[in-house]
Amino acid sequence: MNFEDILDYRQKQRYYSELCTMISPERVALFEKVVEERTDMQCVVLENIYQSQNASAVLRTCDCLGLQQVHIIENDNLYRINPDVALGSSRWLDLHRYNRKADNTSDCLASLKAKGYMIVATLPHEKNVFLNDLDVTRKLAVVFGNELNGLSEAAIEAADIYMKIPMYGFTESFNISVSAAITMQNLGTRLRESGADYRLSPQRKLDTLIKWAKRSIKRSDLVEKELMKRLFDL
Amino acid sequence: MNFEDILDYRQKQRYYSELCTMISPERVALFEKVVEERTDMQCVVLENIYQSQNASAVLRTCDCLGLQQVHIIENDNLYRINPDVALGSSRWLDLHRYNRKADNTSDCLASLKAKGYMIVATLPHEKNVFLNDLDVTRKLAVVFGNELNGLSEAAIEAADIYMKIPMYGFTESFNISVSAAITMQNLGTRLRESGADYRLSPQRKLDTLIKWAKRSIKRSDLVEKELMKRLFDL
Repeated sequence: MNFEDILDYRQKQRYYSELCTMISPERVALFEKVVEERTDMQCVVLENIYQSQNASAVLRTCDCLGLQQVHIIENDNLYRINPDVALGSSRWLDLHRYNRKADNTSDCLASLKAKGYMIVATLPHEKNVFLNDLDVTRKLAVVFGNELNGLSEAAIEAADIYMKIPMYGFTESFNISVSAAITMQNLGTRLRESGADYRLSPQRKLDTLIKWAKRSIKRSDLVEKELMKRLFDL
Repeated sequence: MNFEDILDYRQKQRYYSELCTMISPERVALFEKVVEERTDMQCVVLENIYQSQNASAVLRTCDCLGLQQVHIIENDNLYRINPDVALGSSRWLDLHRYNRKADNTSDCLASLKAKGYMIVATLPHEKNVFLNDLDVTRKLAVVFGNELNGLSEAAIEAADIYMKIPMYGFTESFNISVSAAITMQNLGTRLRESGADYRLSPQRKLDTLIKWAKRSIKRSDLVEKELMKRLFDL
């Protein structure tokens, strides 16, 4: 049973308070500091990334930059998180994986569009909008393609915006983890400066805190069961 | 003999024209386009980078961003360029290596200071100047330390400015190639927007073009010898 769908906000607050008694105060303080700067206004989509080291470096960057949601499309690669590179950052992100349909790209991007995101395709060779000109007051889902072939046709077709980082050298493209870092840091900095309300809603904050707390407790499934019974007779 | 120290500007122009006859017009056009956007106003210093993959990714980023000069300090690591990652970008950069003294860090940073650079140390845990607040009208040499221990004491001591990229997550630092990319892309974008004269001097441009042309010609040492004799009777 997914208790998050049953409990109301005040019940969740009570549940979270109980979980916090099992975690060090320092860690709880860290959760509450980090959650304040999390955003869903911008998210990253990785399509068929072959080198797990690159994908893991992107996850680490997303955590550092305060992005909470990462979408991972696996049309033909089995994605594995490289623990050395991700440094545990994937534990604190909402990872959404798309790997069960014939066309996982369209599945993922349609679902993001339905949530109000503009789909931004990063194409090194197309000249359209430059990174600095992207409108950060819109919800943006930025799609990064794989190292060999770039983005799929389905991703290019579904995109609302084609974006380019200005480049001046002989090398014609950045490494994927570099490209994602430059892009998301630029967008995130401008979002924070824009005055837009980029923070998570109180509801999303609380759900996120509960998730982080559960991940910090051993056998959190048993703890949850016991607490649901004791606190709410569920 | 280093002919670059002997020839005057007009002689160099003549020499470069002769070299260009041995290179495809497309390549010459590319050289001239790329050199227009090269800058010495900002440069990267890598101190004891253990993972050559990281160092090579930084070189690729520098080329993409139009930085011409990279300084590589090797106090205890033998630096090797990883050809898969650098994608040949190191051929087009001025790589300065410091590995012969007892204290290569001080050697490198003192020489940069003498050339008018402000030394910027990137320290993830210090809160001083934020990236966005660095003054891009100054010449900046940004030093990135190694993956395990960060910057050496000598580098921290020599630094004029301590810089931090804002971070909001659980992970306490970016990967080095990510950190360098975010930093140099931010500084480069602001430099280009600042109205400052960031381009190479005509003299530096011509020297750089000659260097690139020589690297594109087989047995350029013999070609040079022959041309020096024929053109200038040297």
